[in-house]
Amino acid sequence: MAYRPELSSSSAALTREVEVMDERGRVSTINIPAERPLTVYVDKRELVTLMTLGGAPEALTLGYLRNQRLVRSLEDIVSVQVDWSVDAVAVKTRNGIADVEERTAKRVVTTGCGQGSVFGGLMDEVDSIVLDPDARLTQSVLYRIVDTIRVQQSVYKQAGSVHGCALFSKDGEMIYFVEDVGRHNAVDAIAGKMWLDGLDGHDKVFYTTGRLTSEMVIKGAQMGIPFLLSRSGTTQMGHMVAEKLGMSLLARCTGKHFLLLTGKERLIYEPGLFDDARRIA
Amino acid sequence: MAYRPELSSSSAALTREVEVMDERGRVSTINIPAERPLTVYVDKRELVTLMTLGGAPEALTLGYLRNQRLVRSLEDIVSVQVDWSVDAVAVKTRNGIADVEERTAKRVVTTGCGQGSVFGGLMDEVDSIVLDPDARLTQSVLYRIVDTIRVQQSVYKQAGSVHGCALFSKDGEMIYFVEDVGRHNAVDAIAGKMWLDGLDGHDKVFYTTGRLTSEMVIKGAQMGIPFLLSRSGTTQMGHMVAEKLGMSLLARCTGKHFLLLTGKERLIYEPGLFDDARRIA
Repeated sequence: MAYRPELSSSSAALTREVEVMDERGRVSTINIPAERPLTVYVDKRELVTLMTLGGAPEALTLGYLRNQRLVRSLEDIVSVQVDWSVDAVAVKTRNGIADVEERTAKRVVTTGCGQGSVFGGLMDEVDSIVLDPDARLTQSVLYRIVDTIRVQQSVYKQAGSVHGCALFSKDGEMIYFVEDVGRHNAVDAIAGKMWLDGLDGHDKVFYTTGRLTSEMVIKGAQMGIPFLLSRSGTTQMGHMVAEKLGMSLLARCTGKHFLLLTGKERLIYEPGLFDDARRIA
Repeated sequence: MAYRPELSSSSAALTREVEVMDERGRVSTINIPAERPLTVYVDKRELVTLMTLGGAPEALTLGYLRNQRLVRSLEDIVSVQVDWSVDAVAVKTRNGIADVEERTAKRVVTTGCGQGSVFGGLMDEVDSIVLDPDARLTQSVLYRIVDTIRVQQSVYKQAGSVHGCALFSKDGEMIYFVEDVGRHNAVDAIAGKMWLDGLDGHDKVFYTTGRLTSEMVIKGAQMGIPFLLSRSGTTQMGHMVAEKLGMSLLARCTGKHFLLLTGKERLIYEPGLFDDARRIA
């Protein structure tokens, strides 16, 4: 049986109701995302505070440690215990984080909505990542994925102001769906779930509601995923890093529309998909 | 004459053209935001790397240092020199940054799109901030502000994927408009411009396209601004911190619509604004 650290199971209420007044002075209530601070302690040492919706705090913590390359193997983690009464999570490792001071010293403030921080050195890893050149995605599976997202129940539909990320199989089956106020935290939670379930990324597709920035591309690449889809756009750094990595980036994915930016050879076009439309029109 | 550090003047091209293929295999080009890494060196010591569009790198650098409370007075800064050939900016201070190691050690990873990092200690400052209780904003000035944003030329309209922030006077005149891939960087650039021009925030209004998260509220409060407007929504932490600070938050601002969340006493309703509509309708 695959190893699993001891985990708490502490998802929290995802929305909260607040009173508002509109332009005509009418009072009503709306739901807003229940963003909370989660301070991560590793072997009693405070590492970072993550602002999160709280839907998957254990997976988020694990995914954060993995994506920051602070822990190499799941077996290195003994336990992850979340305690919302103190907005904290305590991680126990088997042997401590090697060179933790040094490795958490260099901050790169990434885009996100301004100041995302990736511990320096991760950008350097980019040079050694190889994404599966033979992975393929058909246009119909792409549309299946986009449509699955469209009908997905979500906090976003209730309360706005959150980002959603999802992992799909190459046949377009949704494996995980995670929302968080911060897109990078949603990605990290998915990375944590993949780690726990022993899933590899080479034959998966990643969907995000957020922009295809350099950090999103790097995270996806670290997770070994060759396809990154978004309904939003991309940036120069995101495009440049994706090209360097040979990742397939598809932006502006809505309905039948998309823009294929990089890694174009992996998408299998199916022109026949549009024939029905022409016959009906 | 007011003191001004020695500044380079190094804005860079804001968009870049890339080739794309759409759902029918048609090839065309689109403009994407030209996001770049800007590594900040203070007195030759590497501090952080900011991902930015590059429209106002000197102001961004100054505003970052100010909003992180790493430099107290503009007179402490001797020069800010940006060099895009090495994606870096060199800041010279008069006396160094006091306790720089200690003050940059504690990281709080904020929302943004996941991993915004605010140096610990800033959250504590929140308790001591007092925003002008007598500041007032009329409904017509609010609409003037929203409409000014609507017609503003922008990278966003060309290329998407960027956030815009603007500072307005209490009469609804736009003072600064800054776009960046990251919202926090756009705010910091505005803070930098205010610092250079000696502007106080107590009689100003801040508009952002991004969500009203706790970091946006804290930044606005640090800048002494009592009004924070967005066309987007808010989160629980943003709402909570705004309530604590007595900041006036207005979410979902589009056309004539808005949701007034906190600091409600500062908005002056003008019911007569809707009379014309009723007569015409």
